[in-house]
Order: sequence, then structure tokens, then C-alpha cells
Amino acid sequence: MQSSLLPHMLHGCDYNPDQWLDRPDILEEDIQYMKKAGINCVSLGIFAWAALEPEEGVYTFGWLGEIIENLHQNGIVTFLATPSGARPVWMAKKYPEVLRTGSDLVRGEMGDRHNHCYTSPVYREKVYAVNKKLAETFGSHPAVKLWHLSNEYGGECFCPLCVAAFRRWLETKYQTVNAVNDAWWTRFWSHTYTDWSQIDPPLTRGEHCTQGLKLDWMRFVTAQTVDFMTWEKKAVRDGGSSLPVTANFMGFYDGLNYSKFAPLLDVVSWDSYPSWHSDAETDAGVAVHTAASHDLMRSILPDKPWLLMESTPSCTNWQPVSKVKRPGMHMLSSMQAVAHGSDSVQYFQWRKSRGSCEKFHGAVVSHDRRSDTRVFGDVAGLGKRLASLDALIGSVPRPQAAVLYDRENDWAIKGSAGPRNAGMGYQETVVRHYQALWQMGIGCDLPDMEADLSRYAFIAAPMLYMQRAGIAEKLRRFVENGGVLVGTCFSGLVDENDLCFLSDAPNGLVDVFGVRAEEFSGLYDNEFNHTIWSDRCYAMSSIIELVRPEGASVLAAFENDFYRGEPSLTVNHYGKGKAYYIAGGAGLPLLSDLYAQLADELNLPRALDAELPEGVTAQTRMKGDRTFVVAQNYQQYPARIHLHTPIRDLETGEEVSLLELSPYGVRVLEK
Amino acid sequence: MQSSLLPHMLHGCDYNPDQWLDRPDILEEDIQYMKKAGINCVSLGIFAWAALEPEEGVYTFGWLGEIIENLHQNGIVTFLATPSGARPVWMAKKYPEVLRTGSDLVRGEMGDRHNHCYTSPVYREKVYAVNKKLAETFGSHPAVKLWHLSNEYGGECFCPLCVAAFRRWLETKYQTVNAVNDAWWTRFWSHTYTDWSQIDPPLTRGEHCTQGLKLDWMRFVTAQTVDFMTWEKKAVRDGGSSLPVTANFMGFYDGLNYSKFAPLLDVVSWDSYPSWHSDAETDAGVAVHTAASHDLMRSILPDKPWLLMESTPSCTNWQPVSKVKRPGMHMLSSMQAVAHGSDSVQYFQWRKSRGSCEKFHGAVVSHDRRSDTRVFGDVAGLGKRLASLDALIGSVPRPQAAVLYDRENDWAIKGSAGPRNAGMGYQETVVRHYQALWQMGIGCDLPDMEADLSRYAFIAAPMLYMQRAGIAEKLRRFVENGGVLVGTCFSGLVDENDLCFLSDAPNGLVDVFGVRAEEFSGLYDNEFNHTIWSDRCYAMSSIIELVRPEGASVLAAFENDFYRGEPSLTVNHYGKGKAYYIAGGAGLPLLSDLYAQLADELNLPRALDAELPEGVTAQTRMKGDRTFVVAQNYQQYPARIHLHTPIRDLETGEEVSLLELSPYGVRVLEK
Amino acid sequence: MQSSLLPHMLHGCDYNPDQWLDRPDILEEDIQYMKKAGINCVSLGIFAWAALEPEEGVYTFGWLGEIIENLHQNGIVTFLATPSGARPVWMAKKYPEVLRTGSDLVRGEMGDRHNHCYTSPVYREKVYAVNKKLAETFGSHPAVKLWHLSNEYGGECFCPLCVAAFRRWLETKYQTVNAVNDAWWTRFWSHTYTDWSQIDPPLTRGEHCTQGLKLDWMRFVTAQTVDFMTWEKKAVRDGGSSLPVTANFMGFYDGLNYSKFAPLLDVVSWDSYPSWHSDAETDAGVAVHTAASHDLMRSILPDKPWLLMESTPSCTNWQPVSKVKRPGMHMLSSMQAVAHGSDSVQYFQWRKSRGSCEKFHGAVVSHDRRSDTRVFGDVAGLGKRLASLDALIGSVPRPQAAVLYDRENDWAIKGSAGPRNAGMGYQETVVRHYQALWQMGIGCDLPDMEADLSRYAFIAAPMLYMQRAGIAEKLRRFVENGGVLVGTCFSGLVDENDLCFLSDAPNGLVDVFGVRAEEFSGLYDNEFNHTIWSDRCYAMSSIIELVRPEGASVLAAFENDFYRGEPSLTVNHYGKGKAYYIAGGAGLPLLSDLYAQLADELNLPRALDAELPEGVTAQTRMKGDRTFVVAQNYQQYPARIHLHTPIRDLETGEEVSLLELSPYGVRVLEK
Repeated sequence: MQSSLLPHMLHGCDYNPDQWLDRPDILEEDIQYMKKAGINCVSLGIFAWAALEPEEGVYTFGWLGEIIENLHQNGIVTFLATPSGARPVWMAKKYPEVLRTGSDLVRGEMGDRHNHCYTSPVYREKVYAVNKKLAETFGSHPAVKLWHLSNEYGGECFCPLCVAAFRRWLETKYQTVNAVNDAWWTRFWSHTYTDWSQIDPPLTRGEHCTQGLKLDWMRFVTAQTVDFMTWEKKAVRDGGSSLPVTANFMGFYDGLNYSKFAPLLDVVSWDSYPSWHSDAETDAGVAVHTAASHDLMRSILPDKPWLLMESTPSCTNWQPVSKVKRPGMHMLSSMQAVAHGSDSVQYFQWRKSRGSCEKFHGAVVSHDRRSDTRVFGDVAGLGKRLASLDALIGSVPRPQAAVLYDRENDWAIKGSAGPRNAGMGYQETVVRHYQALWQMGIGCDLPDMEADLSRYAFIAAPMLYMQRAGIAEKLRRFVENGGVLVGTCFSGLVDENDLCFLSDAPNGLVDVFGVRAEEFSGLYDNEFNHTIWSDRCYAMSSIIELVRPEGASVLAAFENDFYRGEPSLTVNHYGKGKAYYIAGGAGLPLLSDLYAQLADELNLPRALDAELPEGVTAQTRMKGDRTFVVAQNYQQYPARIHLHTPIRDLETGEEVSLLELSPYGVRVLEK
Repeated sequence: MQSSLLPHMLHGCDYNPDQWLDRPDILEEDIQYMKKAGINCVSLGIFAWAALEPEEGVYTFGWLGEIIENLHQNGIVTFLATPSGARPVWMAKKYPEVLRTGSDLVRGEMGDRHNHCYTSPVYREKVYAVNKKLAETFGSHPAVKLWHLSNEYGGECFCPLCVAAFRRWLETKYQTVNAVNDAWWTRFWSHTYTDWSQIDPPLTRGEHCTQGLKLDWMRFVTAQTVDFMTWEKKAVRDGGSSLPVTANFMGFYDGLNYSKFAPLLDVVSWDSYPSWHSDAETDAGVAVHTAASHDLMRSILPDKPWLLMESTPSCTNWQPVSKVKRPGMHMLSSMQAVAHGSDSVQYFQWRKSRGSCEKFHGAVVSHDRRSDTRVFGDVAGLGKRLASLDALIGSVPRPQAAVLYDRENDWAIKGSAGPRNAGMGYQETVVRHYQALWQMGIGCDLPDMEADLSRYAFIAAPMLYMQRAGIAEKLRRFVENGGVLVGTCFSGLVDENDLCFLSDAPNGLVDVFGVRAEEFSGLYDNEFNHTIWSDRCYAMSSIIELVRPEGASVLAAFENDFYRGEPSLTVNHYGKGKAYYIAGGAGLPLLSDLYAQLADELNLPRALDAELPEGVTAQTRMKGDRTFVVAQNYQQYPARIHLHTPIRDLETGEEVSLLELSPYGVRVLEK
Repeated sequence: MQSSLLPHMLHGCDYNPDQWLDRPDILEEDIQYMKKAGINCVSLGIFAWAALEPEEGVYTFGWLGEIIENLHQNGIVTFLATPSGARPVWMAKKYPEVLRTGSDLVRGEMGDRHNHCYTSPVYREKVYAVNKKLAETFGSHPAVKLWHLSNEYGGECFCPLCVAAFRRWLETKYQTVNAVNDAWWTRFWSHTYTDWSQIDPPLTRGEHCTQGLKLDWMRFVTAQTVDFMTWEKKAVRDGGSSLPVTANFMGFYDGLNYSKFAPLLDVVSWDSYPSWHSDAETDAGVAVHTAASHDLMRSILPDKPWLLMESTPSCTNWQPVSKVKRPGMHMLSSMQAVAHGSDSVQYFQWRKSRGSCEKFHGAVVSHDRRSDTRVFGDVAGLGKRLASLDALIGSVPRPQAAVLYDRENDWAIKGSAGPRNAGMGYQETVVRHYQALWQMGIGCDLPDMEADLSRYAFIAAPMLYMQRAGIAEKLRRFVENGGVLVGTCFSGLVDENDLCFLSDAPNGLVDVFGVRAEEFSGLYDNEFNHTIWSDRCYAMSSIIELVRPEGASVLAAFENDFYRGEPSLTVNHYGKGKAYYIAGGAGLPLLSDLYAQLADELNLPRALDAELPEGVTAQTRMKGDRTFVVAQNYQQYPARIHLHTPIRDLETGEEVSLLELSPYGVRVLEK
């Protein structure tokens, strides 16, 4: 597969004509409006199983063929979905085993979606059959460009079939029951197993204390989902289709370890639904989280462009309060995805459904069937702009900085039981470290512990509670070779089974950081300690550690409580590099000041050669010797940025020294 | 049946002598105290099944006969209840099918009340037998005046019998499964049914997205409850009793569409438990909600007096914090019911029970068996006053204004999924529109979409999200014929199955209102937009719409965000009438000012010819050419009102120009 | 048994070598560090069942023998636990009946701890066998000093075996079903039983209104747990061991009535985990609640020393936010237990476990295996101090004041349904009355209604809602004989079955208090009434009563609402004593002023002859003619107290007139 699917930026949408087959006027209007909106690709067949196989073994693909062909005739390509995201009612009623069983051991009833058992042989058989048939029928159609496997994989099942599979998975991993007892420390509270059949998943009314069990269950759920996706992919390959495949993911959703899916994917795609215009944070704050999500997804296959598979041109309808996008925000938020490496902007969905639970989810065409609406205008405007940006195709960000985020560490911290069951805030902490770079226009990967870290000059690895995949050794080598590492409290405490290291913390890195952490304690919400560094005072929250220097230089100390005078920030020279240790929960001000200093020292490339005002960022995509920059303003007022080095506006061709960005403005530049 | 049950105002209570049959001293005291308190009617037999049929088929009615007769001898009439509100333990244990099954498909155990299956043949058989027997035994007793069928009908059951009944109900309604698919838009997420047996109710672990299913389930629950009540009524008729019947309802309780019970009722009655002296709102605020509830219940049979079947003379005991009524409040709140058309004031209950969960619910007689208490004194005082108000018997309010409230629309909005899942506030909005009239002393009906609307001069129809029963056509004709209509955002969006109209909103009324609503968006709690009209600035909340004028005059525009300059309030002349459209959630100040202007234009009759101070209202009852006015002061300080037209105090006979109301004072006047 | 287990103050810990049997280096380090920390006793075998009986009937006690012997050789005694606190996995899987069934009638799965059925014959058989075997093997070992039966008894089971046992228990208590109906007032809502088999426990989906049922269920749960403990004790006695026994309790935990265990106990012990350094209250506030808990536990066997069986030297890990103890707090909080009569300070646990849910619970030795940590230093410091305090062994507090707290009253109030379902605050009220004495350094028992009350000079009996065990008569005699009694609102309302007395309240004590309470009403959170007494104004909250004097002198009246002028505080002379009545929820200021006056009148002995500053207390232990005083400062700043009578510092021997306490300081003195 090439690095890009098509030579054009994609502008597309989920399209559900199966809901409108009795309305030829609507189907005709769809084509006409798609052309007006600059749509050049659609995702078809998601949730269409009932229309594709209305009774068992009876396939009715005719309508789909006609739709694909008609789109093709109108210059629109198809991403074809397998329909496994929701099974038909007849299947649930005839084969209840296809329905998921909850952790309370009660099987679900027919309803909703994304709730089938990934283990069920019946479900796998039915999925295989329909996928293969789809591949045989459409896998070579010239307009079909990509397989969209299922939809938003996620969730877990506790049925007897899954429990048995879990036990087999454990047996393969551990060989003996005693090895499980050792790994999970089951002797605590006499939970020692003496037979594989005694091991249950973490059930609602069962085991809550064995954290190793919970971790392995999450790993099994990921493995079983990967196995299911492998099966889906095999079906389309067996159907004779060699088209690339993707699966649409969900950013920071923590039910799966997405990294494990990388080998199956030709291209990464994901569904992004930020809460713009929120009452909980500024648009810039939302933008940071969205940017980190884009980079997290991109980091699954870090050297490739990716696809924004779903977004809304208007509002969602499932949040407590749903807000439409303000004028400008649709352009800005769409271009943000492009800035972070997406080769597409796609929507869920093309046309609002008439009924059911997402009928008020924003779509390109609303119930009034108009194309003169504000929303349609925003979409068409973006379509026009994307059509002029083919130069970006195939270019990718190539950051020299990374903030380490590891899904298994996330699971482990959430299950750690102390020091803050009220919330450890690992994801929030990662995003805060990311933000300190984002606001300088410094691109950033979000690799996990299994990733190759040698490519970076700077790594922040906050709250590295769990150590796995040789991470201590990797980080040691990284610093040894000249890298700058930032670590924080609550690091190096447990191994991959959540077993505490019987050693000083952070395990295996005491000499790298030059400190050992003797105690940690929670801080209440709204409780702070303070530290003074370079004449500025910073509040620290959430967790605080009592740290003993073992060679490090103490840069700053705590000011409050009995921690007064104890180290809060240290640095240690190790090999050719340096390792900083922050002994408490650092806020953005401290991270900003520290990372600005480190960025200068390391000469980390900034997208724009300038100080960026608050709420403004710029991100870089590179291809060969070309470097594109997308500058974004998340404020509702204009921004004026004096560039130390002028840059060219890719769209107007003009040379820019004073970069002006309108409210919610976005500009595409080339260095 | 006459329009009134008795020629006297009724003063009564639930009476449970079945709890005290071993205490003749208590039973004797009851009679003596009832006379002292001016009690002239009691509700008997509610929850007495265990005393009436202690073992299957063995009826022990003797005690009941004695009680009725003894009351009769002492001049007290009886409302006789059927005992179906709670079944005996032996029945639950012998026939578990009589117990309700939850939406989790788990059957309940014996306990509490109001939790029997309305479908169960066994339950119906047992109810029929005891009801018929009661009717045969007491249905012709001269002291028995009314059947009180069951108690507070409500709730739902998901047992196999109910599921089967639901499927039969659907089959009758839709004829074919495909018609269900069309009506419920099941093609979304592949939920297409191919057989009736595939359709389940909205189960906890089942279907949550098909909103048409939820609506039809709620309709079925109402239909099944109506059917059960029909069965109860048939039993008493088969027992030879032709006495009038009622069932005590619960105001804005949304589990049932009470309008559907109208054909079964001879008189409306309901149980009113306002939270006087609340920390959440003023007494006046509580009074408005209570007034609206009275009028909502009255609107079920709008041309008849009704009965306040239950209230408390002191406190409830099931709220988070229970407060006794302050001096004066018992008189005021009781007379409020009379003001809105009640011919009775009745209590739950006469005497506090010794044990169980409502032993601390306020009653006329407390555990200390005293009649010299504050509460007993309040009750006796009211008894004396009611005895002097027989002139009001048979009079009814006859409002020319209406605020449309539709129970099915309430269900639909609650299930609509967006734009504010945090709460759409339909009931609150309806009460706010009602309040704008109440505070002017303008009487108001609360009809639903099935009602005859031609009798009104003014109709507010806020949040008319769903359209059913030809409401668009009715409203069009109403305006055409000279009526003034006020509509708001979130109107005319879906049909009776929650299917979106594929047209401009508000569907079918764009020309009447002269606007179309292109988009709606939620506002966060405590987020406001503002509008300036007639030099006053008003905050608007909850929802906001982007409205395009199609002929209407724009009276005011929004001030904030990108809505600035867009219409917030419009008016359109249509036929002989006018239609106003409010494009966001209007607060009381805007509604007050707008409705004051419209009331003057339309010359809507006010109970008192005066400006009423805050917290004061007056309501009207009419009979022949007599017009009674009940003036009420919900403030803790006195009110003085200068009347432009003098009025006569019905109780003192004096002519009043300066109407003085003491704190919590109430006066009965005649025009 | 002597009054004390050993002639030394105990310093000990839960010790779990069964988790480390494959690590001889750890086991050796344990002994070495224990000696360094001054540990002289350990609790062994808690939760060790899987290590003691790895398969059914196969006992592997060898490791335990070696550990006991090794400890013995090193001068450390053993408290030996029976392992019933958590059963092995094999047992749960083979005999599911040993697992508890919830109130939803669903049986639990294997997991966690403390969740076995106390009724199950299988579980009892297995417990008996292992207990007897342990007794046979170790019951005469010279180093084993005490049986630690199970662990933190608690919880309830609704399995068929327990339901049957409950019905038998009821039959024994009531003889006839009709007696149950009478006691529980089941005629309310037709819940009349006609057969024992109809009576279920209070199930989730069952009975919620019959409060007598709930009370008897709680009594049954206590009785069944006592019966289970009796069975455990019989097993060790049948095994030939005559060692004393204890069971570790949980203070104000309300699942059991601990008083009923008194006859089984040789010594009381409990597990204390206060939330020091909380954001919800001051350290002094935490200290008061902890002190009251110590005294509550002590009052189970009021004339004996007790054991602090568990505490943490650092932090817990199961609270929302876990905080380590500040420097000084470990010494202070440990000595607090000693001040209230404990002859030990023991920890959970010696060494942090490597994995599972309590791995971050503070222990003496952390994962870093160091003995040079802050926490280890705190523990060793305490060990050294305790070793010098053997003089205190066997001394006990002997208070002349009592605050009555009754567990069954607690249950009844929580289930009372009104006037404040949002929270009646019985425990909080009891602790507030206790605090008024604590802050004066006046020792206090917390007896229940079954206790002998004649030993006291002063009794506060707040919220004596329920009357049982002849409490009215006891209190009458107490006052008659010269005692001073303080009663409050919400007293004397129901009998032991929660049946309301049909009399004036407080039942049977109207002449003693000289008042009757006619009505009570809830106050909202943050709603207050006020009263002025002796020129000071006090806020009253939660509940307010309308009280009618019947002979009492009115000392103060309410100021607000319609209660203005009604009695708030009264006193009545009765016999040789006096009875005060407080007609609302009194805050600490009123109680402080009132109790200071009463303490002076009664000459209640204070631990120190001085006014104590805020946050400082002192408690007394007596033995023969020796009187020890432990002075404690819960403030973070020093305290200086001028003593009217000098006192001797027990540790330094110096005579003290100006008592100085450092921040978090504690001093042991002798009068």
C-alpha cells in the first residue's frame, strides 16, 4: 500500500442509504448535494447487516451495488464497512450466544450496538460469511478503496465462552497455576488458585482485589478483539480482496490497547468528537486534548498519514449539553486534524436519520433537506479548501519530542488502590505535559513503552508507575546517549503484573535520576504544595513525594507542610544526557517554563519561529524536503504573530512576516 | 351523576380502622374526634385486602360493615376503595405472577405496594372477585357515595404476560411488522424486526435507542392500566353498584397519560403533597406548581368540580427533609384547592399508624391521641370554614386561556436524545408559562393535544416538539379564527412516532408563525443569551434556535455569541389572529411582560380588577351567573390590594375596595 | 485470665509470612527489623487459610510452627488467628453455599474477603476443623498468648439457609405469626403474614416498609454472627486450648450490635483508622471521633484494658485520598489509644504486600526493605517509649460521666422514615455530646440501654428515639437518685419494635423531664433556629420540636419562625436529681456551656486541673490508688497550660505546674 490512499485530500462521510431505499428522491438528492459539498468519498455499510442479510443466509446486496456504482459514476469513492458493529435482530433471537454477557454474568438482550461476543463461534461464522461475500462482490470494484472493519471495536464479554478463552489465554501465558499465583500475589487474602477452572474474570460480584487479574483480563480483552479483527480481515482476504484495511478507533478510550492492532492496520483512522464551546474548559483547552488525541492515534503508525474517519459538522447529541459549532470552528477543527497528519476530513454522518437515538446528531444535511443552511455552507467551504491542498498528501509530522503514554500503565494506575482513589489523573497529566510543547508549536509523539524511543531528543515520561517492555533500560540508554528525560512522582513502582519492586523507586532508574522516592502521599482536591524555581512560585497538586537525593542536584524544594525544604525538582547528569525528576503533580506553569528552557537547550524545532500567543499553535507536516505548517487560532479574537523567519502562505503564495490569524482562523503555510 | 357528589363541601380523610380492630377505645375516639374536626366523609378500605380476604376466597367484611354503619349513624359518608393497591402476602406467595417484573426481567418479591402485574389473569380474577363482593355487600348502602378504584395507579411490568400483551397491542395497532419498522426507524443500527416475537419492551439490558419503541411502550402501559381499571369498574358494576367512580391521580407524575382515563371517571380526584416551606423555592413558587397541578388534573374533565382526595394537615415523611406546615398554611393550601375547583379537602390520613414506613406522615390525630394539638386545631378550623361554603358547590373555573401540556410530548422530549440530555425542562417550562398568567389572577386550563382548543382566546404551546392528534391543524384554525398563539423553540420536529418531519420546522406551522427554525443548540446550566424588547433586557436559557423569518415581524433579537442580531421574538398575523414565536428558553420576566400585554389586548378576565403584588393570586369559580373569587396570599407578610371594582366578601358579606390579606391569608369573595 | 495479657505494653503488628515463604532473606530481615523497631507481639494467620489447608483436609502447618518458634526465640509473642476471614478458592468453587448471597438473592462469586455465609453447615464444618487443628497444634505453645477469632466480623447473607434460620429465630422469639403481625404493624398496606414461610428478610426487590422486620433482621444478623463466633470459640476449646480470645471490631460500624459479643470476649480489641490531616475536619475533630470510638469499644467490657489491634504507621490506601501521618502524629495517635485504656499499639501490617489491593497500605517496612525511613523511625521511637510505660499496665479509665449510645437505636433512627431522611445524624450527635466532655478532659463511657447506668453521676442520652431494656425506668431511677440527665428532641417515640407509643413523648419520662413534645419537624441542611441562654445566642439545627411544659422550668426559648417563644431548653427537678431537655439539634457551643456548668455543679473529675486550650485534651487511667494522665495536643502549634494543681511527669519524674506540649505533643503524667 502506498502511504496515501488517494492522490487527493479526502472529504467524506458515513453514508446510510439503507435507511432510505424507499425514497429515490432522497437518494438522488444525496448525490446532487454531495457534489455541491465537495464530498469525494463515503463510508458505506456500517450497521447495514439487516439490509444485507435480512434472513439467515439470504444476502441482498443489490442495493449496495447500485449505490456504489452510482457514487462511482459521480466521482465518489467508497470505503466499505463490514457490518459486524451491530447484528440483525433475527440473529440475536435465534443465537443468544452472540450477545454479550456482563460482568454480573447476566446476558444482554437484543438492543443498541457494539455488544456482541467476540469469542462466539456462531458470531464469527456469521461475520466471516457476510464479510467474505462482500469481498467477493465488491472487493474489486474500482470505486472501493478501503475496508472499514466493523465499527469502534470495544467492550468486553464475560460469557462462558469468553471465560474459557481467558483461561486458555492464561494457560498459554503462564504454563502453571502457580506461576499465576506468583504473578498476581494471590496469597494475599488466601486467593491462591489450585486449578485453572478456579480462575474467573473480574466479576461484579467476584474478585476485586487481585490487580494482576484485572490487568491480564484487560490484556485478554485486547488480544481477543485483535483476534476477532484478524478473523474479519481474513474473511475479506479469503473473499479475494487485497484492499487496505482500517478500523476506526476512539482516541484516549481505555478499553483496548490500540497499539496491539498496529500490525493489522494499513492506515490508522479514528472518530473525533471534541466538546467545543464547553463550559468546562476553553476552546484552546479542548484543542489541546484533541491534538493529543490525534497524535496518540497517529503514533500507532507514526510514519504514516491517517484518516479522520468521523467528526461532526455541527453538534453531537449524546453529551449532557450539545452545542453547535460556532462560525469558523468547523474549518478550524477540521484543519486541525490535517495539521496533525490526517489526509481526510470525514463526517458521521451525511444526512440525519429520521428516527432513533442519533437523529439529532449533526450531519451535513438536516431534516429540512436544505443545502442553503449555515452548516451545509461550512461543509462546502471546507470541501473547496481541501480540494486545493493536495500538496499535503503523504506528508507527515516528524517530531523530535515525545510524551510517553502507555495504555497498560493507564489500566494499572486506575486499579492501583491508593494514594488517590478519587482520581490519579494519568491521562490528564500526560496531556498537560503535551500541552507545554503544543503551545510552543513543537510537535510531539505519544509513544508507549513498546515503541522505539531512540528517535527522540526529548522524552517526558510522567507517572511511569508500571515498568514493562524493558522501559527502564530503554530510558537509561536514551539518557546515556544524550537524551533529556523528565520523570515524575509515582514512577517505577510495579512490574507488568502490578507487583511492587522490592527496591528503591523509581526502580532501576535511581542512578539515572539521581534520586530515590521514599514515600508518596495524596493531596486533596484543591490542596496544594508550592515550590519556588528561578524566582517563580508554582503550585503542585494531586500527589507529593518525599524524595532523597542520590547524586542529583536539587533545583527546587517544597515550601509547605513537613515537606518544606525537601526536593521538588532535581536534575542529574547521566551519560551524555540529563534526567529531571519532579516530585509532585506539576501544573502547566512549571511544565511550560521548564520545557521552554529545555526546548531552547535542545533546539527542538518549532513550527513557527516566534513566541505564540495563548490559544495559538502551529503544527508541521513534512514530505521530502517540503515542510508545511498549519497555524491555528483557538481564540475568538484575532492573533498577530511577528515571525523571526518569514514563511510562505501555501494558499495565497504570499510571503508572511507578520502572521495574522482571524478569530478561529487557520492558515496553511510552507517553510 | 350530578356535577357534585353531595350538596356540601366535603372534609374528609383516608381512614384505616382495619389497623385498629383490636382497639375499640381508638375506634370510639375516632368518631368523637371526627365530629369535633368537622369531618363529613372518609375513604375506607384502601390497602385493606388482608383484612377483607385473610385467606383465599374467605371474605371477612363484617368489620367494614360495622364501620360504615357507625360512620353513617354519625353523619359521615363513605368513599369505598377497592383493595387492589396492595395484595395480601398469601397471594404473592401462592401466585408469584401477580408480582411485577422489572425491566431487568427479574420478578419482584412481596413487599411495599403498587407493584402488581396489571396483565396477570390471576390478579385480575382475584380483584374482580373481591370488588364484586364489595359492591354486592356495600354498593347500595346509603352512606356509600363513591367508588375509589385502587390507589394511585402507576408503574409498569415486564413479565412474559405483559410482553405478550404488548406484542398483541402492537399487532392491533400496526398490522404488519414492517409498519413497525417504518414507524420506529429500526433500520438505524440494523434493528429491523422480521417477526412480532422479536419485539421486546425497552429492557434494562436491551433496546435503548429505538425511541418509537419507548413511546409505544408508554402508550401500552397506559392502555393496559386503563384496561385494568375498566376491569375493576366492571366488577363493581357486575356487583350491582351504579355509584360514581374515581381513581386518585398524581398530578404531573409522568408514568401514565391520565387523559386516557377520562371516559372511565365520574369525578377526577388527586393526591397533592406540595413541599411548603422548601429551601429550593418560595412558598409562592410552590403554590404556582401546586396550582398548575390542580388545573392539570381538573383539565381531565374540565367542566366538572373535582376532589382533593389526599393531602396532609402537617408534614409528609418521605421527603429528604419533612417540615410541618406553619400556622395558616393548612387553611391557605386547602382553600387553594377549593379555589381551583375542588369540592373537597381530604387527608391522608385520619390517624397516624403505629408502625411501618408512614407512621410519621402527618395526620389529623397523632400518636398522643390528643385533640388539643396545633394540627388538630388547624383541621377543625378548616372544617368549620368549609361548612359555610356550600354556595361554591358545583361551581367551576371557566378559563379563556390555556397552556398546552401533553403527556406524550413529555415522554417524547425526555427521550429525545439531545440537545440537552442534562434536562430539557418541559414541565418546568409549561409551569413558567402558567405562572405568567397565575400571577395576574388569570385562570388557565392545561389541555393536551387531543383537547378541544376552540374554546380559548389565548393559547401558549411551549416546546411543542411532537405533533399528534392533528395539533398543527387545530392551532392553525385557532389562529385563523382570531386566537393568539405563543409558540417556542423545539417545536414541530417529530410525528407521534418520534420520526422527524422532513420539512422546515415547526412542521406545518411555518406560515402560521412566519418563521422557520434552522438549528437548535443547548445552553449549559447557568449559560444565558440575552434579548432586548421594549427597552428591557431578558435572559434566555436552556435552548436557543437560529430562526429565519418567513414573513413574521422580528420584535427582538439575540444579543450574544454568533446569534447576535438573529431573531429571538417574532409575531405573525395569520387569518384573524396572531402567532408569536420565542426562539429560546424564555424566563418568567419575558413571559410576564409579554402575557400582560396580550392579556390586555385580549381582555382576558382577571379574578380581581387590580395589579396583584408578588406572591398573591386569585382564582375564579363560576356557577350560573355567580362568580366566586378566592384570593390567596403566599407571603409571610400582609398584602393590601386596591381594587378598581369593589367586590363582596362571601363570608362576611362586606363590600371590599381595599382587599387586605393577612400573612398566608385567604378570602372568599363574590363578584 | 488476668486483667492484662502480658506485664508489658504491647507493640505489635499483623504479620503475613505466608506471603513470603519462598523468600528466606525476607523472613530473616523481618526478625532483625522487628527487634530494631521494638516489636514484642505479632498477629499471625489472618487470611492464611490457603497456606494452612491448600487442599481439602490437607493441613500444612509446618511453616506456621517454624515462624512461631522463631519469633519466640527472639522474644516475640504470638496472637494466633483463626483463618475464617477469607476462605480458600477451592472451597468456594467446590461448595458455593459458603459464599454469601446478597439482598438481591444473587449468590456472590469467589473474591475479596468477609463474605461467607455464617449459617452454612459446610462452612462451619470447615472452620471447626481447621480451628480445632490449630488449637491442638499451637494452643499450648508458650509464645501463643491469645486467640484472634476470624477478622472484623461483619456483613449479612440472604441465602436460603439464612432465611430459614431467620424464620426459626423469629418463631423462637414470637411463638405465633400473629405476634409478628402485631409487633411489626403489618396491617399497614396489607402485609399481614399468615404463615412463617411468608416472611422474607428485607430484600432489595422485596419489603422496604416494615421497619420492625428490618430491626429484627439486624438483630438476627448479630445473633447469627455471635453464634458463629461461639462456634469458632468452641472449636479452639475442643482443640484443648484455654487461651483468652478476642475478635477485632470496628468502632462505630453499624452492621452489628457489638455489646452482644461481650460474654464471648476475654479482651476487647479493635481496628482504628482515623483520617488524620483530613480536608473535612481538623485533627482535633478527628481526635474526638477517634476518642469516642476508643471509649465505645472499651465500654463493651468497661472495667478492662483493651487492645488496639490494628492501626497504620503511615497511611491507609482505601480512602478517596490517602495521606501519610505528619511527623509526631504516629506517636500522638498511638498514645491516644493508650490514654483511653489500650495496653497495646499494633499495626496492620508489618510489611507491605508486594501485590493485591492493599499493597500501598502503610506498613512498618515498605517495598524498599529499608529500616532508615521516616516511618520506620517513627515506629521504633514509639516502641522505645512504650517499653518504658509498663506502669500503666492494667490501669483503666473510670469515668463518672456517660453519653448513651445504643446500636439498636441507631438502626431504628436510620430506618425511621422522617423527619430527615437526608440524615438524622445520631452518631454525630452522640459524638458532639461526647466532645463537650472530652475538651474539658472529662472521661466518658458510651454505654447502651442494656448497661448498668447507676455508676454514673451524669448521663447525656441524646435522641433516645427507641426505648428498650427498661431504659425509661432506669433513667427515672437515675434521676430520682440524684443523677443529672440531659435528654433531647426525638426521644421516647417508639418501642423496641419501632411501634409508636400511644402516649405523650418522651414516653414514660414526661414527668421526669417535665415536658411533652407535641410535634417535630426537620430543618434543612444550613437551616437554623436560634436560642438565647445566659446572654449567648446559639444556633440549633437538624430537628426542632414544639414542646409543651408540664412542670419544667423554661431556661431558654427559640427565636425564629413560628417557634419563637416556644421552649428550647428546660430543666426539671425530679427526686434528688435534675433532667434537662433540649428541644432541637444543639451545636457544640450550647453543649459546651451547659456541660461546663453541670460539670462544675457535679464536681466531675477533670484529668488536669486547668482550662484546656482548644485541640488539647487529657485522659485518665487508674489502677489501685495510682492515677495516670495522658495529655495530648492535636494542634500544630505548642500548648502551655497553667495547672492549678501540679502534677508529675511519669517519664522524666519532674513536677509540672506549667504543662508544655509541643505541636502534636503527648505527655504521660501521674497525679
